[in-house]
Amino acid sequence: MSGARKKVTLDGRFQMHRGGYLESPTLAYETWGELNASRDNGVLIFSGLSPSAHAASSADDPSAGWWEDMIGPELPIDTDRFFVICVNSLGSCFGSTGPASINPKTNEMYRLEFPVLTLEDVAEAAWRVVEHLGVEAVHTVIGCSMGGMSGLAFCVRHPDAARRFISISSATRAEPFSIAVRSLQREIIRSDEKWLNGNYAVDDPPIIGQRLARKLGMMTYRSAEEWRGRFGRERVTEEGHTGDRSKIEFSVEAYLENVAQKFSGGFDPNCYLYLSHASDLFDLAEHGGSLNSGFKRLQLEKILVIGVTTDILFPLHQQHELAEGIKEVCPDTSMIVLDCLRGHDSFLVEMDAFRPVICEFFESCVDR
Amino acid sequence: MSGARKKVTLDGRFQMHRGGYLESPTLAYETWGELNASRDNGVLIFSGLSPSAHAASSADDPSAGWWEDMIGPELPIDTDRFFVICVNSLGSCFGSTGPASINPKTNEMYRLEFPVLTLEDVAEAAWRVVEHLGVEAVHTVIGCSMGGMSGLAFCVRHPDAARRFISISSATRAEPFSIAVRSLQREIIRSDEKWLNGNYAVDDPPIIGQRLARKLGMMTYRSAEEWRGRFGRERVTEEGHTGDRSKIEFSVEAYLENVAQKFSGGFDPNCYLYLSHASDLFDLAEHGGSLNSGFKRLQLEKILVIGVTTDILFPLHQQHELAEGIKEVCPDTSMIVLDCLRGHDSFLVEMDAFRPVICEFFESCVDR
Repeated sequence: MSGARKKVTLDGRFQMHRGGYLESPTLAYETWGELNASRDNGVLIFSGLSPSAHAASSADDPSAGWWEDMIGPELPIDTDRFFVICVNSLGSCFGSTGPASINPKTNEMYRLEFPVLTLEDVAEAAWRVVEHLGVEAVHTVIGCSMGGMSGLAFCVRHPDAARRFISISSATRAEPFSIAVRSLQREIIRSDEKWLNGNYAVDDPPIIGQRLARKLGMMTYRSAEEWRGRFGRERVTEEGHTGDRSKIEFSVEAYLENVAQKFSGGFDPNCYLYLSHASDLFDLAEHGGSLNSGFKRLQLEKILVIGVTTDILFPLHQQHELAEGIKEVCPDTSMIVLDCLRGHDSFLVEMDAFRPVICEFFESCVDR
Repeated sequence: MSGARKKVTLDGRFQMHRGGYLESPTLAYETWGELNASRDNGVLIFSGLSPSAHAASSADDPSAGWWEDMIGPELPIDTDRFFVICVNSLGSCFGSTGPASINPKTNEMYRLEFPVLTLEDVAEAAWRVVEHLGVEAVHTVIGCSMGGMSGLAFCVRHPDAARRFISISSATRAEPFSIAVRSLQREIIRSDEKWLNGNYAVDDPPIIGQRLARKLGMMTYRSAEEWRGRFGRERVTEEGHTGDRSKIEFSVEAYLENVAQKFSGGFDPNCYLYLSHASDLFDLAEHGGSLNSGFKRLQLEKILVIGVTTDILFPLHQQHELAEGIKEVCPDTSMIVLDCLRGHDSFLVEMDAFRPVICEFFESCVDR
């Protein structure tokens, strides 16, 4: 990943949205394609909670990115046409400053001394990278999941800096079910005795809590329908069938264990807590006092809202709410409902459904 | 509760469905109304995972039961007409023998030495109570949630002993989403350092794990729709609004904390693990090799299947599957879909929707 990752360190204090500041934070980002002469072909991608800036492979880093099949030459986000930027979220742990970074004031990790993180901060940090790259206004902002809310924050705070917006499986704000899920995930991590109030040993983190929290996450990232067809009541082994109470017995349990183990080692627990909490906090209505006033701050030419029928984390009615509200201020707003099986994660795994939709959006842009 | 709770201790060995046995287990139960001369007015209620046998108040115990508004004189399960029996599930901790009971062989608590528990065992134990009460065949078996599966087990294993069956928010077997939820709940409890491989101190149980598991449970017992209207993004306090990362901030978090604290002290963790696992194991298809052969073992006159639109733990399509399968062998099968807001728990909290349905079932029984 390091081959393609670029970094920019901001000068001076970075003021945080809910108070406090960071001294000269660093932002890690990657780019694909070239900025054109008129500097108007930038596409800014906001990721979900956990990915890095490595959205796609490149000559510098041939490893597959988290949206590998979406970004590249002649792919839907066409790098022959666009200058694509993906920033590792402020507060994350893949090169950007976050709770796992060294606080220059103390020369120790920020941990819980990191100020309250909001998606407005994530958006603002991305804006500083965009500015740094010499882009005044991006052609399109794309946000997936949490990134859709970061993208909204970006468009609301810098209305001149975004001309188009694609929201994928996101919302104007979290509803109580999603808040409850994330709150419980955080509590599970904090309840791991190794969390030590955020002061865990870096080589001995609260891995059990992280693993359990990830399993809970997966239950909301995928769908019951998918699992019904994929696992049914299949057992892992015949011995499992005897009913041993603490062993993995059903295939769905083995799947979750496998996914959770892969994730847990790779993400800093405090960073996770901060980004998860930021997802709960975001509310477009805080920009002006109501959803409507939030929408009115947008100055977008064209918007696409994509939702998935089986998504329980950002359910479809939230995509409709977003599309209908935004249409009031931007008539060229489309809403696409995809009948994918894999729930919230569909944008990462059902690429055949998403690619044509993204493709068509860019083909229909008038500047082509 | 003790005022009305009766107990019966079975003679000799109670053979468990998956192997092993219990030496003279005790079953706690309560009854309401009187058995008639022809001994054909018995109604047997199978509870969900957590309730005791105290389904309703009585002269002996005036405290409210878990189905207080359903059982009593001139109530839907009319105790002027029926002899109502509710047994605390085998494996539970409210008077019936379970992992928290003393093992007569060792004079210590069974804990994990308790044999694998199945809903077939729960059903068989209830049958022994029914027999003990002099009832050869019950007028109606009613099962709610897990109890619906226990009720199916009862009707399959003792086809002569049940004439009618009401299944409420239950299924023929658990699907992978529900298995995943329960598996994670159990893993959360086992991950609490105080669980000590089942050997926790009785006065210092793994309460944190139990609390977290209960919160996860509540997310599947209720519905996102209910919480949207009930809590929205309401905050607990103004201070919460500053975004303190470890404090309760949103009303939905406070609600879950309150519910979880109330539950966790009252249920033995090992009993919970056993009953939860039994819910995963049950599969009607194991009775004969297929769902169809399972259904064919039933000899019921009349069946009512009730499902709730917002139930994600035993989703509506499972109620349809049950009703359609059972109708093949029992033409007098009805399916009622209730559009309740409170998800799986609706049968406990939306009594105005359930009462008329249960009432009508009993009114339409030909023996009236």
